[in-house]
Amino acid sequence: MEAYRHPLTPRYLEIDRQGVVFNAWYLAYFDDAMTGFLAARGLPYTDLIAGGLDVMLVHTELDWTGGLGYGDAAHVEVGVETVGRTSFTLGFDVLRDGASLCRGRTVYVLVGAADNTKQPIPDHVRALLQD
Amino acid sequence: MEAYRHPLTPRYLEIDRQGVVFNAWYLAYFDDAMTGFLAARGLPYTDLIAGGLDVMLVHTELDWTGGLGYGDAAHVEVGVETVGRTSFTLGFDVLRDGASLCRGRTVYVLVGAADNTKQPIPDHVRALLQD
Amino acid sequence: MEAYRHPLTPRYLEIDRQGVVFNAWYLAYFDDAMTGFLAARGLPYTDLIAGGLDVMLVHTELDWTGGLGYGDAAHVEVGVETVGRTSFTLGFDVLRDGASLCRGRTVYVLVGAADNTKQPIPDHVRALLQD
Amino acid sequence: MEAYRHPLTPRYLEIDRQGVVFNAWYLAYFDDAMTGFLAARGLPYTDLIAGGLDVMLVHTELDWTGGLGYGDAAHVEVGVETVGRTSFTLGFDVLRDGASLCRGRTVYVLVGAADNTKQPIPDHVRALLQD
Repeated sequence: MEAYRHPLTPRYLEIDRQGVVFNAWYLAYFDDAMTGFLAARGLPYTDLIAGGLDVMLVHTELDWTGGLGYGDAAHVEVGVETVGRTSFTLGFDVLRDGASLCRGRTVYVLVGAADNTKQPIPDHVRALLQD
Repeated sequence: MEAYRHPLTPRYLEIDRQGVVFNAWYLAYFDDAMTGFLAARGLPYTDLIAGGLDVMLVHTELDWTGGLGYGDAAHVEVGVETVGRTSFTLGFDVLRDGASLCRGRTVYVLVGAADNTKQPIPDHVRALLQD
Repeated sequence: MEAYRHPLTPRYLEIDRQGVVFNAWYLAYFDDAMTGFLAARGLPYTDLIAGGLDVMLVHTELDWTGGLGYGDAAHVEVGVETVGRTSFTLGFDVLRDGASLCRGRTVYVLVGAADNTKQPIPDHVRALLQD
Repeated sequence: MEAYRHPLTPRYLEIDRQGVVFNAWYLAYFDDAMTGFLAARGLPYTDLIAGGLDVMLVHTELDWTGGLGYGDAAHVEVGVETVGRTSFTLGFDVLRDGASLCRGRTVYVLVGAADNTKQPIPDHVRALLQD
């Protein structure tokens, strides 16, 4: 399956004094892209929550090779790296004009929305992640 | 030398619907703690910039074992992990009541503030990092 | 002329513990909508800056009658309220399903990008604001 | 009673390309200062919520006469302007070296934390606001 591509336009406020997007906003981009990715696979985040589930981050890592400036049009490619019993890992690649600026990876644990306890990934969620 | 401890109080706006600090703000905490750490070692960030230098992130990673809620008093412990020719790595530990909630590590490259080209770490910066 | 409509989807991180978008993000929405509005009128913000100009806020006010929740699709309507010699005022209305949730108004002063001194609004900018 | 003064140090990420704090962060400062003010008067925000109450913004306005740069030490002065049956108004003044940079005013409505319905201000809250 082709990688999901989430469009990304930096906000003016996200650009710092160095003229590039401040590092923390990349985690906001990954979050936006994750929810866009799940929705594109057929699982809007609001449905996940309505089903009594949620995700919790346990690990994330980012490697930058460039910076995003104001007015840059970019996108985030999202792919599934691994799917475990209660967790899954998504890979992210922020690209501008086909060139990668930041690669990342986040491990999400599936939890009950009410009590934040780990939950096995339901079959329908597993199926769409492994699609 | 004792680890530097940077005080941390989550903002109301940093708490998300799950009732805990949203993940991206931890990178803001690390940034606050990095500048506090450098200042405590004798290098205020404004001095670094006034000296024509700046830092650029090339890698960061975070591992969460808990979440920060509203009203929680916490702090970030900062330590130097490695010092290379043009980069250095700081380790971060977010603690509440002595218990670690999030550990992280960031690799900073020293660059010229004007052109963002890599610069060797000057001796006086190296000395205070290795103190 | 029809009011400009800027699409708006709250980010997960913008929703606070009350389950609605935290107030400060409305100023981010107004900023996004202002740049979208200027671009739609033929003045991309990057062109404004390339022309040695910038805008500085001197006044803003907001009145809320509702809140935006996660997953809500909304938009910001932008209109020109007044155009003075060195400043102009935009009106904003955040709507969801045709109902207004927040009305605002911001006064922008035109300044030189290099020195932040007030500048008379150039004729071509005045023309597109009054279009 | 002397005005309450809330200390304020801009975060690196709050500084935009113009070299000053982006406008939206002033609402974050006002929020920080409001909770600091209430706590100083004897009503920590966590107690307010524990008592089944919360505040909702219905109006805010800001007037800027200057900008905050990186490394600036500033503070926010907070005072009570009016106290009504279900709402109260706080005034804010952001000062650096004794000079005002931004004045603001926010109208808060007291609501039930569970259902967001307007609540009369309880006597003990009224008393500490009018102190």
